[in-house]
Amino acid sequence: MSKLPNVTTSIFTVMSKMAAEHNAINLSQGFPNFPVDERLTEIVSRLALEDVHQYTPMSGYPPLLAKIATLVKSSYNRTIIPETEILVTAGATQAIFTTLLALLKPNEDVIILDPSYDCYEAPILLSQAKPIRVSLNDDYTPNWNTIADAFSEKTKMIIINNPHNPTGKILNESDLENLEALLEKHPDVLLLSDEVYEYITFEQKHISTHTRTKLLDRCITVSSFGKSFHVTGWKIGYLVAPEYLMKEIKKVHQFLVFSVNSICQIAISKYLDLVDVNEISSFYQKKRDYFRSLLKNSRFQLMPCEGTYFQVVSYANISNENDVDFCKRLITEFGVAAIPISTFYADGKDLKLIRFCFAKDNQTLEEAAKRLCEI
Amino acid sequence: MSKLPNVTTSIFTVMSKMAAEHNAINLSQGFPNFPVDERLTEIVSRLALEDVHQYTPMSGYPPLLAKIATLVKSSYNRTIIPETEILVTAGATQAIFTTLLALLKPNEDVIILDPSYDCYEAPILLSQAKPIRVSLNDDYTPNWNTIADAFSEKTKMIIINNPHNPTGKILNESDLENLEALLEKHPDVLLLSDEVYEYITFEQKHISTHTRTKLLDRCITVSSFGKSFHVTGWKIGYLVAPEYLMKEIKKVHQFLVFSVNSICQIAISKYLDLVDVNEISSFYQKKRDYFRSLLKNSRFQLMPCEGTYFQVVSYANISNENDVDFCKRLITEFGVAAIPISTFYADGKDLKLIRFCFAKDNQTLEEAAKRLCEI
Ligand SMILES: CSCCC(=O)C(=O)O
Ligand SMILES: CSCCC(=O)C(=O)O
Repeated sequence: MSKLPNVTTSIFTVMSKMAAEHNAINLSQGFPNFPVDERLTEIVSRLALEDVHQYTPMSGYPPLLAKIATLVKSSYNRTIIPETEILVTAGATQAIFTTLLALLKPNEDVIILDPSYDCYEAPILLSQAKPIRVSLNDDYTPNWNTIADAFSEKTKMIIINNPHNPTGKILNESDLENLEALLEKHPDVLLLSDEVYEYITFEQKHISTHTRTKLLDRCITVSSFGKSFHVTGWKIGYLVAPEYLMKEIKKVHQFLVFSVNSICQIAISKYLDLVDVNEISSFYQKKRDYFRSLLKNSRFQLMPCEGTYFQVVSYANISNENDVDFCKRLITEFGVAAIPISTFYADGKDLKLIRFCFAKDNQTLEEAAKRLCEI
Repeated sequence: MSKLPNVTTSIFTVMSKMAAEHNAINLSQGFPNFPVDERLTEIVSRLALEDVHQYTPMSGYPPLLAKIATLVKSSYNRTIIPETEILVTAGATQAIFTTLLALLKPNEDVIILDPSYDCYEAPILLSQAKPIRVSLNDDYTPNWNTIADAFSEKTKMIIINNPHNPTGKILNESDLENLEALLEKHPDVLLLSDEVYEYITFEQKHISTHTRTKLLDRCITVSSFGKSFHVTGWKIGYLVAPEYLMKEIKKVHQFLVFSVNSICQIAISKYLDLVDVNEISSFYQKKRDYFRSLLKNSRFQLMPCEGTYFQVVSYANISNENDVDFCKRLITEFGVAAIPISTFYADGKDLKLIRFCFAKDNQTLEEAAKRLCEI
């Protein structure tokens, strides 16, 4: 009966709800709990009284499109044309869904690297295409040989998430070279690059897929102002893609949502004049370092975190439970909510790993760490 | 190649763009140009400085869900459960797209009544289902015999738009009885009732499909705060459906957009305490009457307008051109933009009818009418 028989309530909803019910500190679903930049909220507050309440054009508020083109200029190896190559979306989720639905046909394959964020599979299945899930190496680097082996005549697309949710892994220059070389052998395969955490990277900088000249003509890149500007509730993301792909994506977008929240689009467009996106990384690096230092004396083992606002830890020293049960007990007994990593694997592989979101004010991180150190 | 080979830029985008280029008065795309209720914009202005910037739950901001349940109480013949039967969407377009994609399977038929709004077909085609387009009578009443004849074993759904865009027609009690009787004969057929103009009706009141007890268990109703509260740019709509259907719709919604703009959801939830939705009709009735009176001395022939903020007129006395060409000339030569009705028909039937949006301040309506009276 159901078109998505295996879909249940997302782990983010489950854990956030359970956290609320048990009054636990919610480090599960990824969203900040500190105040948004006052310059941004004041723009909204002022704008609300102006004439900003009617439809923006279908592709997005034109000044915002122009500013996105400027924003991406430094990381892209070509000039992006706002009118034809950029689309503002109701969050990155809508960007991804719309892209997949527009471009995938029945019986085509899409390669996804596990562990993987949960929003890719549904639009693939609804297009009657097939997700082919390939595991990353144990250190979360891509195994380019295994990935190459997964390609077939049916492969239509590969999805890359860089920086990677949940592991925080960043692709390095040699990964991108490997990706480029692989796709050169498969000239018809498209690349969806989910870069929503592009401005949250630490020692190593994020390298956009668009720096690789040979990937430019088939790469669709997704980003998210919600993540970059700490306003996940606003649901403003964007896509960059070459015109021949964007044309198809816009055909679906036009009837899927038509246009995106006007006030928040206009506010972001004005805020982009004031903000330096390069400051986002150092802000989150301090949070990461602080959270890691707070957990140093816990029995959790900290995994590396190169980017995103997520810290993965192992609880193998603490318990033998599967990670979903452990996360539930973490809420009910210790008052802290996390996300079990097994839910990012197609086969539910349980490595005794869980994910904390450290996009929280210091007091919250301190109280959470205090509880976690008692385990 | 394309999954939607016949989709071109929507007529609303085409005409609004052309209106802007020629500095014409834009009565084409449906959106108000008068100020939004200050009580609502002041709520947004104040809210922006508060903690309203992170994800709301997947189904919608819970207080808003509760208030929608109260709002619909009077027009529904049963109690609606906020948690399981209501979904807040990024506009009615997303509500419709998500519903169709969630519920339609390949080779199923969907009955649509022509002339019809342009957003139904794409999600039907993307589900590999088939739109079966049945013409309304010449006076835009449904011909229940023709509609009954269009039903077959493959029919999965019928879509009703009430009040009707573009014609402003409202279904009366006997239409709803006919619809109920027809669907009783087809117990597995679903009903999508697009009621986005439910609060904009004149002499005759809108009767929600939900008043018909026997339709309740298979009716999905769409409404739009954008239309009701003059904030089309906010993109906040909602769906009401029985739980067994809503479950499937939410599965798609979760991965299509996940959640909807937080600030505007919270603002509407507060505004619903202050506003009387029954005042919307009298506000627009005055606009309709004024616009009609202004056009009385023109050579256009006014069609009836029972609801919506659209006035259809015939230009048969003025020109023999097809309606698309006439609309273009109306912009370039007379400085007024309208929508050609042929674009609402699958076969492009040209009846020499065009649609004006009268959701405009009086000065705009006066200047537009002045120009239209000169033709
Ligand atoms: C859409 S809710 C999940 C937010 C998120 O990106 C995450 O927690 O990984
Ligand atoms: C989504 S743009 C079109 C707005 C509208 O509903 C109309 O003009 O009919």
